[in-house]
Order: sequence, then structure tokens, then C-alpha cells
Amino acid sequence: MVSAVPISRYPVPALADLPEDIRARILEVQDKAGFVPNVFVTLAHRPDEFRAFFAYHDALMLKDGGLTKAEREMIVVATSGANDCLYCIVAHGAILRIYAKNPRLADQVAVNWRKADITPRQKAMLAFAVKVSLHSHEIDDADFAALREHGFADEDIWDIGAIAAFFALSNRMANLISMRPNDEFYLLGRVPKERQA
Amino acid sequence: MVSAVPISRYPVPALADLPEDIRARILEVQDKAGFVPNVFVTLAHRPDEFRAFFAYHDALMLKDGGLTKAEREMIVVATSGANDCLYCIVAHGAILRIYAKNPRLADQVAVNWRKADITPRQKAMLAFAVKVSLHSHEIDDADFAALREHGFADEDIWDIGAIAAFFALSNRMANLISMRPNDEFYLLGRVPKERQA
Amino acid sequence: MVSAVPISRYPVPALADLPEDIRARILEVQDKAGFVPNVFVTLAHRPDEFRAFFAYHDALMLKDGGLTKAEREMIVVATSGANDCLYCIVAHGAILRIYAKNPRLADQVAVNWRKADITPRQKAMLAFAVKVSLHSHEIDDADFAALREHGFADEDIWDIGAIAAFFALSNRMANLISMRPNDEFYLLGRVPKERQA
Amino acid sequence: MVSAVPISRYPVPALADLPEDIRARILEVQDKAGFVPNVFVTLAHRPDEFRAFFAYHDALMLKDGGLTKAEREMIVVATSGANDCLYCIVAHGAILRIYAKNPRLADQVAVNWRKADITPRQKAMLAFAVKVSLHSHEIDDADFAALREHGFADEDIWDIGAIAAFFALSNRMANLISMRPNDEFYLLGRVPKERQA
Amino acid sequence: MVSAVPISRYPVPALADLPEDIRARILEVQDKAGFVPNVFVTLAHRPDEFRAFFAYHDALMLKDGGLTKAEREMIVVATSGANDCLYCIVAHGAILRIYAKNPRLADQVAVNWRKADITPRQKAMLAFAVKVSLHSHEIDDADFAALREHGFADEDIWDIGAIAAFFALSNRMANLISMRPNDEFYLLGRVPKERQA
Amino acid sequence: MVSAVPISRYPVPALADLPEDIRARILEVQDKAGFVPNVFVTLAHRPDEFRAFFAYHDALMLKDGGLTKAEREMIVVATSGANDCLYCIVAHGAILRIYAKNPRLADQVAVNWRKADITPRQKAMLAFAVKVSLHSHEIDDADFAALREHGFADEDIWDIGAIAAFFALSNRMANLISMRPNDEFYLLGRVPKERQA
Repeated sequence: MVSAVPISRYPVPALADLPEDIRARILEVQDKAGFVPNVFVTLAHRPDEFRAFFAYHDALMLKDGGLTKAEREMIVVATSGANDCLYCIVAHGAILRIYAKNPRLADQVAVNWRKADITPRQKAMLAFAVKVSLHSHEIDDADFAALREHGFADEDIWDIGAIAAFFALSNRMANLISMRPNDEFYLLGRVPKERQA
Repeated sequence: MVSAVPISRYPVPALADLPEDIRARILEVQDKAGFVPNVFVTLAHRPDEFRAFFAYHDALMLKDGGLTKAEREMIVVATSGANDCLYCIVAHGAILRIYAKNPRLADQVAVNWRKADITPRQKAMLAFAVKVSLHSHEIDDADFAALREHGFADEDIWDIGAIAAFFALSNRMANLISMRPNDEFYLLGRVPKERQA
Repeated sequence: MVSAVPISRYPVPALADLPEDIRARILEVQDKAGFVPNVFVTLAHRPDEFRAFFAYHDALMLKDGGLTKAEREMIVVATSGANDCLYCIVAHGAILRIYAKNPRLADQVAVNWRKADITPRQKAMLAFAVKVSLHSHEIDDADFAALREHGFADEDIWDIGAIAAFFALSNRMANLISMRPNDEFYLLGRVPKERQA
Repeated sequence: MVSAVPISRYPVPALADLPEDIRARILEVQDKAGFVPNVFVTLAHRPDEFRAFFAYHDALMLKDGGLTKAEREMIVVATSGANDCLYCIVAHGAILRIYAKNPRLADQVAVNWRKADITPRQKAMLAFAVKVSLHSHEIDDADFAALREHGFADEDIWDIGAIAAFFALSNRMANLISMRPNDEFYLLGRVPKERQA
Repeated sequence: MVSAVPISRYPVPALADLPEDIRARILEVQDKAGFVPNVFVTLAHRPDEFRAFFAYHDALMLKDGGLTKAEREMIVVATSGANDCLYCIVAHGAILRIYAKNPRLADQVAVNWRKADITPRQKAMLAFAVKVSLHSHEIDDADFAALREHGFADEDIWDIGAIAAFFALSNRMANLISMRPNDEFYLLGRVPKERQA
Repeated sequence: MVSAVPISRYPVPALADLPEDIRARILEVQDKAGFVPNVFVTLAHRPDEFRAFFAYHDALMLKDGGLTKAEREMIVVATSGANDCLYCIVAHGAILRIYAKNPRLADQVAVNWRKADITPRQKAMLAFAVKVSLHSHEIDDADFAALREHGFADEDIWDIGAIAAFFALSNRMANLISMRPNDEFYLLGRVPKERQA
């Protein structure tokens, strides 16, 4: 589980040296996932930024609303594909596979959402998310109108845009520090549980 | 001071309707600045995201370190220029003018930092920040080496990149909701205090 | 009023050394504006080009027609924003503020005309101008039709396109010689006359 | 093993209807791989083009020379990533995993070869391949010199460039006809053989 | 007729040293054209790739179908213009002039097909071909529908896209090896036969 | 010699209706060239702009200095190629062929100056000109230094940049009005005089 390649350009703190709240959060995710995703330990190098990062993440990704959890992860994967972010594609690709119960969806969405096995409504959602990611200054009323035609409420549109915006930050942090995806992520959600044992 | 043009595509909460901590934060900034920057009231539409946003902002912009406050604002203005974000250029341009005590610097940095009245070290800082903003997947060792030659410590480089990353988020949120800069920002820092009265 | 930073990469002629017609033109603008915009003295390094440049400028910017003076300056500012030209944004931004009697319009138009306080007709005008500036080979009948629907005559469309074309030249000259905006321009049109005294 | 989603925009011939040489080739690959990659049956819609395509492919990918088979597949995956080609990334990603005996390499190379677990020599190879793919008109002597410094012979450089050129064709064909990757490819090379059974 | 400038970065084989089938093909084209286009002798450096290249070329360019020979060459010239490929523009420009019996068409199509003396149907064809050449991952149903409205059958659309795809390969090979157009091509089809004597 | 296709989107004035100075200029060029290039009659629709345009043109293209006439035309053709301007490539391509006494140079420079039969000094000149044309805001001291190493004086560099800037205007005007090149230009300079008779 330990890789010889560094997982960050920056020092990675030992769990024992972290503030209590951050250590607790990390132990919680380890319990749930079976390993600690590198985004936790690498960003823990800066505790205040860590806290804000995950508070923001949770506010967007764990909330209720018109988007399913799988749809939220589709937005992450599509925009991370547009930004060529290895960590986010591999880690959130795994989560997307699990939420969508589809072992192929993440690769499709990361490379070209137009070819993915998703609904026209979801394609409209991803077209908007990628526009926020790459050309947000061109967003105008017509973009909102197009999403409303697919049944998205304005609060859903905020969700789509805000997730794209948050992962614009996340992609850049991962690229900045050369955050390395955990080996575990590559396979997660690709094979039935029993075969991964 | 009240503009007829909406300051956001989304509902703007009344101060009285906000959670106590958010109201307190807004009153504090109003006390200090003499008005409430629109980023506070427009993002308050989503309290949890508001809290994370400003916690992140403060962690990056108020911390000590190798970058001056004016340099941090230069990064904001240069990268917001690269992303064509009206709110951030106008609002943080004002803050940059004040911190740098230079009424022309913000316009220079927003349009073309290569022509700004700053040091070669600061130009190297902005070249890196804009690369994080626009092409973060191409960041490599040579970029770090170039900054170290200008005397930046690795923690400074994290600061530069993280500010660029955070405003990649901020620019997209402002463009998403069509956040309008307060009229006050346009003039702040351009004329001596007595003449603004 | 004298800046220590050079206003051009090239020698700047003394007024006394200039041909009579060029000196007269410069004295005329000084009388009217209260200072000599740097574009005059820096381009005077090449008298024949100076004469052609300002003859062209006057033919486009001082003529009568379907566009107001403020609209002509909007075109200058929007296309100079697209070309990242500091001199033209700062100098013509000042002129735009004065003609439009609006202290915020120039910053809006320079950063993102889609967010500016202008009419839909003016937005169509600027969309076309920026297309001429950045992708003129893609101009086709549909672009002309769109402007005609907003009530622009074909001669107005020539004006829009020709101003965009002329400032494509002007922006490149300013960037080539590192033409520096006069300090005066930054504040012009931002505050009522009496407060600038 | 049969997907409800079409594997091509165009008719897919039945094996029985194909010319003998093409059917033989397809049966051969089926024997070897255990399934028929969709590129074979979808391109068989045009027998002459099929023959030329695979003759070209074999001339480049099966020949001896200074590049290993894994290195040839790295070039395919990196340039297909640059062209957002789902079929080629998924199918050749699988082959790369198998040749390199590395379950993570294909995802790394497809997203951002700069972050892949490969040698500096291989990174130089991929930088050149992607330049051929995206900006071939800018290739000049300096690019050849850079590769020679890494020990590549001129014939190796032809191989690198020609593979990039061939997959420029292949990517466009796959995108044109919406060629769908076989489900099998997604998992190939990710888990030890016994666990795929 | 012999140029002092090399016609390839790579060794150019003597006719006598070539395999019989390749020599025969070259002699045949020499008989027909009066000279040997450099693409034949420069690519003959790699006999297997040569055979595949020309088999592919012939399958696309010599076949019957809904596109005229001149239209096929228009696609070559327009996409080679998009890829800045000197050899293909000059050589296939000559062929286009001859097939179309129009001495100006090739220059028009190479620079900007929107301004060429061709039909709206042909413009739609070239818009699609250039999209395949530059942004093939964005091809979708709407692109097919637009061509069908102009009367193109689906097999014609394959032809258009496949020619664009094949010359994506061809352009990259020519740029890779710095393939030089024969001097003869520059003038072919520009003047009546008798005046070229 | 009369084409059925319009030479401009705008009305083309009859020679008899033009102001005396413009008519004289046109008759002069007709005497010299044997025909009237369409740029003269199409721009004559706006006499004041016509005068400024040609005064500017003459100031840059007819002056003495460190650049030969052929080199000035190379700059025109290379930058017009970068801007996809049919009129300027065809018309100035003809002039370049004549000045350089080289029937192939214009096509080479228009498509890819890196492959043209010119000196390294001339390639440096064109690299700079194209940078002024496409990315003038990135011009900095290093660009000037590179040209000085090739022996260019600072006044030569102004010439290079100013010609690129002027044709940035000219290209946009030609694209705006769909200026059509005269049929004569396509062949000029390609064949010895006696064979054109």
C-alpha cells in the first residue's frame, strides 16, 4: 500500500502530528474506505486550508438536492478531464463507478462525455459544467435556459456550477503539488467486490 | 449606493435572515470597509458554502509568510484577468491599490502583468500564478526551480499556487451567478482619501 | 506628472524637433486635454506613420454615422481588452467614461462586455467587433444579418468592423513599443470634475 | 458480452458476409484475445480501407526497432488522450497495461504523461509524439536534437512520429463513427489473470 | 528540376534499390504525371508503410461515390490548410486545380474555404471535414443532420470524414520528415497546357 | 477580366465618381500593374479611410531601411497566413514572388515560414512578425534581443512589428468586406513574362 513514488511535492505529515479534528476526519475516511485517500494526507500539510477544503467539498457533494450523488461525481470527472487532473480523474472516477454501479462510466466521462452512457439531461448538465470550467466568462442566460428546459431548477444549476468551480480549485491544487492517486483507486468499482478480495 | 441592476442571478438574503455567524462576519466587514462587498451577500445564499469560502480565503490571504499582502492581491488580480472575472478584478483591484499604495498597479496587472510597475521577482511570481490558473497540468520541476532562483521558498510557492487555485474557484462562482461589483470598488484607492469624501 | 519609467522602447522626440504639422496637432490635443497623451509623442518618432495613424483614427472616430461617440469607444475598449493592450484600455477607457458619463463602464467593457451596463444592441455590436478582432476569417452573412436585426445599417457595420481593425493595428503598435499610458488617464472620468482639481 | 448500445454509427457487417482475408484476420484476433475488438468489425464496413488500416497498423506496431512494444502503446495512449478518443484510450490502454505489466500506467499516460511512472527518455518521446499530434507544423531541428540526446536514433524518431500520425487518423475515424470500446477492454490488465476469470 | 534543398529529413532511396512493386508504382505515376511526386520517393524509405499509405489513399481517393474527384481534393486542401502542411497544400492544390479546371480554387480553399467559389453544399462538406480534422471529439448527430440536409448520404459522410482523417496522418508525416513539394506542383493547373510547355 | 462574383460586400465606386486624388492614385497603379488591384476600388468606398490606409501602407512598405522589399512582403504574407486572409495572401504573394524572383516562396511563407527557402535571419524576422500578429502582449526584451543577435537594428524591428500591425488591420478589413483578389494575382510571378502573354 506504500508507494515508492512521492505522493506530493510537499512534506506529508504523519497522522500522529496532525491536529485532533483532522486526524479524526482521516481516521473516519480510513474506516469507511479501507485506506486513506492521498488528498487527505497531502492537503493536511496546511491544516487551515485542509479544513476549508473539506468543508467546501462536503457542502457541495454531501448535500441533498436535484442532483444524484452519481451526477455530482460525473461533474467532477468531466471537469477534471477538461483540466487533465490525474488525481481527480482516478479518485473520483472510482467513486463515480461505485455510485453509478457502472464500471465503464468514469472512463467515458473523463475522456469525452458526449460518448458516455448517460441521458441527454446529464449531457446538458456536463456541457454546462465544462463551460463553467473552461469559459465561465461566456456563461449567459441562454445557458441557464437550456438547463431549465431539461428540468433543472436554478438551485440545481448553482450546484452544477459550484461543483465545477470547486474542482477547478481542486484540480489546480493536485497539479500544483503533484498529488498522486492511491493505487487502490484505479481498480475500485471495476470488479465485483468478491473478486477484489 | 443601491444599484438598480441585480447583483446576482440568485436571491440575495436580507441581513436579518442570515445565521448569526454570517451576519456577524458581514457586519464586521461593513464596519471596516464602510459598505458590504457583494461577494458576502450574494454567496450568503448558501451558508455552508459561504463559511467554507471565507475560511479558505482567510487561510490564504490573511496568513503570514514570504508574500506581502499586496503580492497576494497581485496574484488575485492577474489570474482574475486571465479568467475575465469582472467582480474579482474590480474588487481585488481596489484592495491591491490600497495595499500597494499605487493607484495604477491594479489596471496594469489585470491587463498585462508584463507591463506592470513591479519587480522581476514579482513578474516571475505572476507568470507562475497564471500558469497554475490556465495550464496547471503543465507545471513541472522547471517552474519550481525558476521561482526558487528568485528566492521563493517552497511554502511561498504553495501560497502562490493555492491563491491562483482558490481564485479559479472564485472567478467561476462570480461568473456563474453574475456577481456585480459594488460601485464603491471602482474608485477605491485611486484618489487620496480626502478627495473621495 | 513625469514618470521615471520610459513611455516607449524607442526614442521619444522633443516637441521642438518635430515637423510643424505634428507639433501643431500635439499642441492642439494638449490644449484640449490638459496633457499630451503618450500615443502622440511616442508615435511621432516616425512622422509619416504618425500622420497616417491619426488620419485613420480621425476618419473612423470623428465621423458622423449611426454609432455614438461612446459606442465607438466601447468598440475600442472591448477589442483592446481582447488583445490585452494596456495603453488602449487605460486611455480609451478614460474617453469612454467621459463620453458615456459613466465611471464604471470602461472597466466592465474591458473585462467582459457581456456583464456591462449596455443595451442588447450594444452587446451585439461588441460581439461582432470582438469577432473581427479575433476571428475575422470566420465573419459571414449570418454575422451581418444579426446586426441588421438590431437596426444597424451596413455602413454602421463597416464602422464597427473598421474600428476593430484599426485598433488591431493600434494595440499591436502599443504592445510592440511598450507604450505607457499617461498617469492622468487612470482617473479621468471616474470622479466629478471638481473633485479631481 | 453484447451491448445494447450501437458500436458504430454505420452498419456492422456479419462475420459471414466479410471477404475471406478479413474474416480470417478477425478470427485470428478473436482466438488470441478471446473477443473481437470493435475496431475490426466496425472498420470492416469498408474492406479496402480495413486492409490498408491494419497493414499500416502492423507496419508500425509489430516491427522491430528501438522502441519497445509498451513504448509504442504509450505513444498511442498519450496522443489519443490529446485527441479525446475514447475507443483508442480504452482499447490501447488495455494493451499498454498488459505490455508494461503495470495496471496504472495507461490512466496516467492518457491523462497527463508528465505525471506517469516512466523514464525521462520516455517523457521526451511522449512530448515529441504529442507535438506531432497537435502542432506538427512546428516540428523543427531542435525537436530532433532533443530526442537524439536521449539516445533515440533517427529511425526511432520516424517510428514515434509515424505512430502519432497513424493514430491521428485512427482517433478521427473512431470519433467519426462513434466507435464504442468493447466492455472487455476496461478491465484488461488491471487485475491478475486468475481474478478476471 | 533537381532542387538543391533536401526533399526529406530521411534518406531517399534510389529507384533501383526499391522493391519491384514500389518501383512499378513509382514508374507508373512518373509516366502519367511526367515527374515523380516527392511523397512517393520519400515515403519509399519505409516500404511497408509506403504500401499501406498508398493503399489507403487509393481506397479513399479513387473510389466511386457521391463525391466528385474535385470535391475529394477540396477536402484534402482545406484540411491540409488547417494543419499548415506545405506539401499537401501545394501538391493536392495542383490536383484540385486540374480536376476542378479552376486555377484559383486551390488557393481559396487552402486559405479560407468560406471565401471559395464553391456551392453551399460544398461549404457544408468542408466545414465538416475541418471539424473532423481539428475537433473530431465534438462530432455529433447535429453534424450528420446538417450534411444530410445538403443531400449527402451517410456513405458520403464517411468519405468526407475518412479523407479528413487520412490526411491528418498524411499532413503529420509530411511535417515530420519535412517533405518538400516538387517545384512542378506550384504551377500545375494554373495555366493552359500549351503555355506550360 | 471581369468576375461575376462581387469583389466586396459593399458598393464599389466607379472611377469617375471618385475624388481626384484617389482617381489619380488608382490610374497610376493601373498604369504600373496593368490592372487595378481590388483593394483600391473596394476601399475607395470610404475616401478618408482610403487615404489614410495607403499613406500608412506607403510609409511602411516604400521606405528605405534595413529590410529589403522582398522581406517586407514576406512579413505581409506570413502574417496574412496566420490570419487566414485570402486577399492579402494572393495579392502580396504575387508581389513577393516578383520582388524575390522566386515563384515558390510566397506559397511556402503563407503556409509555414519554417519550411520556406529563406535565411535563418529571415526566419527570426518572421517568427517575431507572427508573434506581433498573434500574441503581441507577450512581446518582451528577449524577443528584441533575439532579433539584435541576427543583426537587426531597433529601427528594423519597428519596421517588422509595424508591418505586422498594419496588416493586422488590412487582413481584418479584407475579411470584413470579403475583398476578392483579382484573378490576375494568382499567376503573377509564377511564370516568365513571355509565357503569360
